[in-house]
Amino acid sequence: MNAPARRAPRRLESYVCGGWTAGRGEGVSLCDAATGDAVALIDASGLDFAAALAYGREVAGPKLRAMSFHDRAGMLKALGMALMGLKEEFYTESLHTGATRADAWVDIEGGIGTLLSFASKARRELPNTRVLVDGEVELLSKDNSFSAQHILTPLLGVAVHINAFNFPIWGMLEKIAPTLLAGVPCIVKPASQTAYLTELMVRRIVDLRILPEGALQLISGSVGDLLDHVTAQDAVTFTGSAWTGRKLKAHPAVIANSVRFTMEADSLNASVLGPDAGPGTPEFDLFVKEVAREMTVKAGQKCTAIRRVIAPRAHVDALVAALGDRLGKTALGLPGDDAVRMGPLASLDQREEVRARIRELQADAEIVAGNPDDVRLVSGDAARGAFLNPVLLYCDTPFAATAVHDVEAFGPVSTVMPYDSVDEAVALARRGKGSLVASVFTDDARVAEEMVIGMAPFHGRVLIGNRASAKTSTGHGAPLAGLVHGGPGRAGGGEEMGGMRGVKHYMQRSAVQGTPRLLSAVTGRWIEGAAVQQGVHPFRKSLAELRIGDQLVTATRTVTEADVEHFAHFTGDTFYAHMDSAAAKANPFFDDRVAHGYLIAAFAAGLFVDPAPGPVLANYGVDNLRFLTPVYFGDTLQVRLTCKEINPRANADHGEVRWDARVTNQDGAVVAQYDVLTMVAKTWPPTA
Amino acid sequence: MNAPARRAPRRLESYVCGGWTAGRGEGVSLCDAATGDAVALIDASGLDFAAALAYGREVAGPKLRAMSFHDRAGMLKALGMALMGLKEEFYTESLHTGATRADAWVDIEGGIGTLLSFASKARRELPNTRVLVDGEVELLSKDNSFSAQHILTPLLGVAVHINAFNFPIWGMLEKIAPTLLAGVPCIVKPASQTAYLTELMVRRIVDLRILPEGALQLISGSVGDLLDHVTAQDAVTFTGSAWTGRKLKAHPAVIANSVRFTMEADSLNASVLGPDAGPGTPEFDLFVKEVAREMTVKAGQKCTAIRRVIAPRAHVDALVAALGDRLGKTALGLPGDDAVRMGPLASLDQREEVRARIRELQADAEIVAGNPDDVRLVSGDAARGAFLNPVLLYCDTPFAATAVHDVEAFGPVSTVMPYDSVDEAVALARRGKGSLVASVFTDDARVAEEMVIGMAPFHGRVLIGNRASAKTSTGHGAPLAGLVHGGPGRAGGGEEMGGMRGVKHYMQRSAVQGTPRLLSAVTGRWIEGAAVQQGVHPFRKSLAELRIGDQLVTATRTVTEADVEHFAHFTGDTFYAHMDSAAAKANPFFDDRVAHGYLIAAFAAGLFVDPAPGPVLANYGVDNLRFLTPVYFGDTLQVRLTCKEINPRANADHGEVRWDARVTNQDGAVVAQYDVLTMVAKTWPPTA
Repeated sequence: MNAPARRAPRRLESYVCGGWTAGRGEGVSLCDAATGDAVALIDASGLDFAAALAYGREVAGPKLRAMSFHDRAGMLKALGMALMGLKEEFYTESLHTGATRADAWVDIEGGIGTLLSFASKARRELPNTRVLVDGEVELLSKDNSFSAQHILTPLLGVAVHINAFNFPIWGMLEKIAPTLLAGVPCIVKPASQTAYLTELMVRRIVDLRILPEGALQLISGSVGDLLDHVTAQDAVTFTGSAWTGRKLKAHPAVIANSVRFTMEADSLNASVLGPDAGPGTPEFDLFVKEVAREMTVKAGQKCTAIRRVIAPRAHVDALVAALGDRLGKTALGLPGDDAVRMGPLASLDQREEVRARIRELQADAEIVAGNPDDVRLVSGDAARGAFLNPVLLYCDTPFAATAVHDVEAFGPVSTVMPYDSVDEAVALARRGKGSLVASVFTDDARVAEEMVIGMAPFHGRVLIGNRASAKTSTGHGAPLAGLVHGGPGRAGGGEEMGGMRGVKHYMQRSAVQGTPRLLSAVTGRWIEGAAVQQGVHPFRKSLAELRIGDQLVTATRTVTEADVEHFAHFTGDTFYAHMDSAAAKANPFFDDRVAHGYLIAAFAAGLFVDPAPGPVLANYGVDNLRFLTPVYFGDTLQVRLTCKEINPRANADHGEVRWDARVTNQDGAVVAQYDVLTMVAKTWPPTA
Repeated sequence: MNAPARRAPRRLESYVCGGWTAGRGEGVSLCDAATGDAVALIDASGLDFAAALAYGREVAGPKLRAMSFHDRAGMLKALGMALMGLKEEFYTESLHTGATRADAWVDIEGGIGTLLSFASKARRELPNTRVLVDGEVELLSKDNSFSAQHILTPLLGVAVHINAFNFPIWGMLEKIAPTLLAGVPCIVKPASQTAYLTELMVRRIVDLRILPEGALQLISGSVGDLLDHVTAQDAVTFTGSAWTGRKLKAHPAVIANSVRFTMEADSLNASVLGPDAGPGTPEFDLFVKEVAREMTVKAGQKCTAIRRVIAPRAHVDALVAALGDRLGKTALGLPGDDAVRMGPLASLDQREEVRARIRELQADAEIVAGNPDDVRLVSGDAARGAFLNPVLLYCDTPFAATAVHDVEAFGPVSTVMPYDSVDEAVALARRGKGSLVASVFTDDARVAEEMVIGMAPFHGRVLIGNRASAKTSTGHGAPLAGLVHGGPGRAGGGEEMGGMRGVKHYMQRSAVQGTPRLLSAVTGRWIEGAAVQQGVHPFRKSLAELRIGDQLVTATRTVTEADVEHFAHFTGDTFYAHMDSAAAKANPFFDDRVAHGYLIAAFAAGLFVDPAPGPVLANYGVDNLRFLTPVYFGDTLQVRLTCKEINPRANADHGEVRWDARVTNQDGAVVAQYDVLTMVAKTWPPTA
């Protein structure tokens, strides 16, 4: 059942300054959540935290910054794949935390999956460079002699990640993935209670030697005076209780140095049953299932769990009955037992804590299902393990109540409350004073719109549940790599993940101003006004030869009425503005018949394409095409094509090249402007 | 000379809860910087600050949020134009602050210009909606039944802007412009010393009745217990001394409620002379001019002023001589005197403060130009006015020094220090521990790249000065509406302006998840999988009739070898992949000859365009065109065109409509995907 054989408690070590070190003290004993047996001893006293910070900054920082985004993404992918191969060891260790296999899946495979998601998003969404360009060029002069471009560069410090006990693996990986992608080393400090699992994974990561030495350090135990030594180039993230979080956020060194501080803390997340979603509808059944699941997964020890269940007054009785029924069937017991659906809380202390919070909730609400003092098990020992059956409360007057909106019982506990209008439901959700996530179950588009827009300012994530997404919804409780995780106010005001947004959190945004030639030298990207080189046709150059600013100015071509007539009949695009002079003149944008936009782009390609086989392999797209001046019959076109951005792929014989295409008429007016996207071979002729 | 006639000091009032109110006390006297005469009395004691916050939130918030981004932009434009018409009154009042006409131009016209810039950028860069869509749709299911989209909604609170004394108008306008654009009301608290000028402008703004009542409140005096009442939906910004800023940032209500807090504080901005920029080069002369200008504009009382002048050791003597010469010619005197180039500091206290800081700098550096205790004037009275001539110091061993990198003398004071390599110059710039801005004067692209990338992590803005931008550079000291203003670390860690980035600071980002139909209802934007309506050709519908999801599925067209041959010869695009079977087969992306991408787009238009005159006026562009599957001879194309986004223009008879165009082949594979951008009339036939 609870698989691992009894063994002497393991003495956890910290990995700092290139080695594994035990603390100076004897260590605090950490107990198995289900059996109470000692699992590990933890202590980090006597460590030189200032040295650990300096080690990360000086040893690992330069190595990470020397890598490109794609290099770092490749490194994370390799790490994720290797860890996935070792997963069973983590599952076994995870049993001590009280996590069932399903709970541990979220932590272990969910965590590794997050790492892999970041790796693949970074390869798709970031260029293969070291510096990121942010936003468009800002033109600051009429003659184009002075412009600006925002860039993002990696912080030169270390990110200190202080994590919660409930997800010892996911909690580490979801934070180090964006940090390492940014090029910033990490120091991870897991919550003591379950640090043995984090420590095990860090041991495997160190052994794998995939990350540069110093990119990941671990503190098993208290961080001591570490925060005294953080500077403006470091960042600190915290997940845990609001009380601790506020203390850290107001730490003198954090305040004095304006250290980036991200916090995920208490969150009284709400889930709302739509007025349309009464008993008998698929949404009602989905809602019951989701609330019960969120209450029992990880024994409700999730920062995203549903704490407040907001339902139309008319459906409250049916809802309480259905939820009570479902929760009553939740088999509680040893996490290794296949018959068990819910394991224990993290510790006996944690259970006492949750019971105390339930008593506080009872000031506003009555228990309608479950009994916190009467533990019913399918396996295990209620005296030794931190077991607690789900408890559902009901608060009939939620607008008069305070505890139900303020007190977080971090266990399988939720409170149902009624509402009489959509406005009331939104107002109740907002009473959480800022949460990580809210959800609404409805099939009515109007209800979805009103609820989501109403709740959004108070939430980092809002999920809509309905019949159409019943099978594919990732669920109320699941933070995802591509979506922001974090909520305002009580939830801490932080923002983690969110795809590449999370990477940028560890980078400094700077506006760079200067003449285009020098600006382009800084960003590695050609901009209007920067230096150009003409000569051999740039389509004859492989990535090895091509340079930013390589430019072709084409021959000219005059567009005739016959061309337009011909193109119209050939393509079938006989839009009146091309065909009918009187009708074109009536159009507010045209003085007479005009050439098709697609004809301009096609003629432009005819002018700039070099036809013979060569390093340019394909045109895979066009970006930001704008037709800026109408082309009338007799106008003469010319194209200026300039190599703007070169992005070699890490694992292929080619890369992407972005060309600035500018089509002008005989007066020099720009008739069309766009980016042409091509695949170009790294060498030509290709090497075997 | 100092124009305004002597008058009794004006009693400043606060504008809160819809009325002008004086404080309960007698008021603190504010003196003219140049004459010492009392100008105004300030006091805000006894005001109900909690009520002011509630008034903003409840009275103005809903009105602002009911407006679209373009409505708000139009409002700001109208306000800016009206204020520009009143500018002379502000110039007159500004004389009391010690500002010369040139100094006041930065504050008054620079401030109003910033407001107008934000207005025009918002109309160009934001849609005409109330909710912003942020980033791309995140696909979360393979069958497209569940996706996510980030949105930004306005905070439901008030932004409290606590400003510095040096720019009483610009300081207010640069902050309220992005705040009001976001749909969030403001409370402005100017620094007392120059609050009379801010108060005058707020009186004019209130009288103009362009902003909704309550959108702008003013506190003339201390904010008392205001911060005790801020919530997670409010935001606080602070510009001023680090000491005060840190106190506010660690305020219990700010910490407890995770209130968004932005700070701009001390900043020891550096300017570096490139190794290539010795005497005789245009960059040397530009550098001397820029340093002298930054030291003397506003008498050096600018958060962006150059405090540290970093120069190649070989050029230090020439530089000190040139700077000393130029600074010695700076005519100091009454700000209204046309012969004067530099006015007094803000107050006699401020002058004593600056003199004390100079004494601290002297621990590391010697004075090489100017004498802080010997005031030389062309007009005015050195005993009554806060005059101070420019002071230049030199520190020969800047790596051993601390004061020159830590002590900010907020006046016409800078320290020159030598460097021996580019790395050293970067290291010295970083010694500022985070600054708002740095600049480097060089004409060498390699130097520019190394310096900028090296300094960027420590700076919010980096300017490159050289001969090519001599006439158009906006200068080291000028924050611009489109660029971020703020620096890490000592500079406060804040980020203001930056164009639309500044607007988003006052909005909450939320990830919304759901089935595409409901997600689309929330965002007002069609996404793949959302509901569609077919029937009349959507090109026959005006904006009044067109709905998101209106869709056309076209007839089909088979692409023949003859089509491709014809298109190639007609356009001139005879790229081998279209023409030569053997060569095409050798290409890694193609199995045989393929159709041109531009031919696919042109045929697609032929399939979806409805030719007769109608509400669709023009195709003005194409976005995100990707060719996803090669089209071979005999393949049959079909287009699905869906109305994705409708953006009516505020001041025109038409608006922009974005169409999702998806071209598939006979197997249903997507061969091309893009957005077609059109102008569509609001009504059809057009109303007179």
